[in-house]
Amino acid sequence: PTPLKIAVIPGDGIGTEVMPHGLHCLRAAASAYNLSLQFTHYAFASCAYYLTHGTMLPADWKALLSTHDAIYFGAVGMPNQVPDHISAWGSLLRFRREYDQYVNLRPCRLMPGVPSPLSGKRAGDIDFVVVRENTEGEYSSIGGRIFAGTERETVVQETVMTRVGVDRILRYALELAKRRPRKHVTSATKSNGISITMPYWDERMDVLRAEPEFEDVRVDKFHIDILTAWMVLRPEQFDVVVGSNLFGDILSDLGPACTGTIGIAPSANINPEGRFPSLFEPVHGSAPDIAGKGIANPVGMIWAGQMLLEHFGFGEAAKGVLTAIENVLGRGEVGVLTPDMKGEGTTDTLGRAIEREI
Amino acid sequence: PTPLKIAVIPGDGIGTEVMPHGLHCLRAAASAYNLSLQFTHYAFASCAYYLTHGTMLPADWKALLSTHDAIYFGAVGMPNQVPDHISAWGSLLRFRREYDQYVNLRPCRLMPGVPSPLSGKRAGDIDFVVVRENTEGEYSSIGGRIFAGTERETVVQETVMTRVGVDRILRYALELAKRRPRKHVTSATKSNGISITMPYWDERMDVLRAEPEFEDVRVDKFHIDILTAWMVLRPEQFDVVVGSNLFGDILSDLGPACTGTIGIAPSANINPEGRFPSLFEPVHGSAPDIAGKGIANPVGMIWAGQMLLEHFGFGEAAKGVLTAIENVLGRGEVGVLTPDMKGEGTTDTLGRAIEREI
Ligand SMILES: CC(C)[C@H](C(=O)O)[C@@H](O)C(=O)O
Ligand SMILES: CC(C)[C@H](C(=O)O)[C@@H](O)C(=O)O
Repeated sequence: PTPLKIAVIPGDGIGTEVMPHGLHCLRAAASAYNLSLQFTHYAFASCAYYLTHGTMLPADWKALLSTHDAIYFGAVGMPNQVPDHISAWGSLLRFRREYDQYVNLRPCRLMPGVPSPLSGKRAGDIDFVVVRENTEGEYSSIGGRIFAGTERETVVQETVMTRVGVDRILRYALELAKRRPRKHVTSATKSNGISITMPYWDERMDVLRAEPEFEDVRVDKFHIDILTAWMVLRPEQFDVVVGSNLFGDILSDLGPACTGTIGIAPSANINPEGRFPSLFEPVHGSAPDIAGKGIANPVGMIWAGQMLLEHFGFGEAAKGVLTAIENVLGRGEVGVLTPDMKGEGTTDTLGRAIEREI
Repeated sequence: PTPLKIAVIPGDGIGTEVMPHGLHCLRAAASAYNLSLQFTHYAFASCAYYLTHGTMLPADWKALLSTHDAIYFGAVGMPNQVPDHISAWGSLLRFRREYDQYVNLRPCRLMPGVPSPLSGKRAGDIDFVVVRENTEGEYSSIGGRIFAGTERETVVQETVMTRVGVDRILRYALELAKRRPRKHVTSATKSNGISITMPYWDERMDVLRAEPEFEDVRVDKFHIDILTAWMVLRPEQFDVVVGSNLFGDILSDLGPACTGTIGIAPSANINPEGRFPSLFEPVHGSAPDIAGKGIANPVGMIWAGQMLLEHFGFGEAAKGVLTAIENVLGRGEVGVLTPDMKGEGTTDTLGRAIEREI
């Protein structure tokens, strides 16, 4: 069969530490399930590259990456050397925008063996997916500064939402919910305080949910402030949670924290039409505080690989990888798990254990 | 002594149910500590008023309220009858803006006897205060809609931050931290994704923290996504948390949720210069889902009264009220506590118990 072409971008910090384990596991899945995966490594889209080249991406990045079906991405950021918005907008956010990866899917599940910070929650109690709008909204970069350097100094930044952009993400969430047993969508809003864009978001949701095909989908909406509170107080209630670029960003760090660690959460940045490569990455960042110590949790990276397999229709293999993750975590071996899961293991012990299990 | 003049605005929903207990407790404190408090009730700034008058506030609201030292406010909102942004902008948000109540202080403390949803946390483990910018930022209401009703429909809303607005709230947070034992400020940002206003916020923080008077204050910053995660995973680390209007809003619902219930959290909307009345309210909203059942938690309302006393220099009385709240909660009587605290009591049993204790 023609191989699935995957661009590999480890990025910075723990991105470079967890990537090898993501690749080991994908290779293990390829041989166990007889898939043909072809990996090409790129050093750009990292701060390391920026510090040498003065730019995050080479001029021909698009020509290079567009030949691939998917991008397998580690993490980006060296906050002490490169301002965060330079590194983010020169890599991840640029890919999302230019490759129109408008759906950001972030499953959030309490896994067996992983202690939740929430008391009394057990594996299975928390199982939802955040559907994040990934191209517009609060992340517009339009705006500027006036009266710079004076007492009147003022900065303005615009949030932009389009009918096309809002409708397609809400529709994606509704369609996803329709296929899930609980058929429930929670929409994150803040239409009481943010009085133009957020009421528009609610308005479009009201239009779309009224379509006959979504008749059996239950929809409710919460303002983002109280929604974060419910995520801690009663996470069982969520099935599909849909939010704007910023709200989806927040909820998809908070949700995984409630399941014990953001180290295990994966993220798929999807261009559903398949016109451009989709990108798969862990939710965690480059984590400079623990970089270089060999203790980063590789599960987010591995699980992102699992989402990649799933996305391209390799359901069996994807299931195999997820089961391997669950089995290893479920055994709860202190010597295997990384410190963020209260273990005493390393990136290597945990990554290898999952690879063997596949 | 000249009495402290307090405008009482119960608002809607559970606002009207918890307000009587807030008043009982303030009266109890006034008699126990020999204070002179004078209350005037206003029915406006509620959706009930709006439904009769077609406006949230009468034309002369400012003349009426400006004669008071403080506004003691319940909660506003009837989402099924009045759009949320109409009710909010016609009351709370308008007061904050027109009375320049630019500091929103929201203490967040795990109280004795209140079960936290976070496992293993005990009273005292969580004890921080959110300092929220309360007049600008994401809550600007500037923007609009273009190409309405067409496929090209687009909405735009501006976030506006001024040097004056950002500096005064960051300075307030730094000064507050300086007076607290841990002397620690956490600044909420999102400068990696929101690339104009948030880097500006960080830039001003870097300027202010470098002032000699803040030498002994430790400052760190987190992006809002990971900050919400840390609030669940390691809330002990926070002392003073400063955020923009939106980020402060989110953190001050999430924080209290981590301490067991948002029903107990208070909020002080302060005009530090005292040119205008300050406003004291519970963090919770009108809660239409439980309104009319008599089970709303009155502690947020009572604690808001405590902040009012504290703000006007009645430290003894404030201490008395806080101790009364702690004592009653600490006894953990199931028949007294409201259902949100896993009790079987009512607004009345809990409110009366605290009143008696004062
Ligand atoms: C009612 C609403 C507009 C308000 C806000 O967002 O500020 C509320 O959530 C609060 O926190 O006081
Ligand atoms: C790096 C940063 C800009 C990014 C975001 O905010 O989208 C990250 O937090 C994420 O969630 O992928």
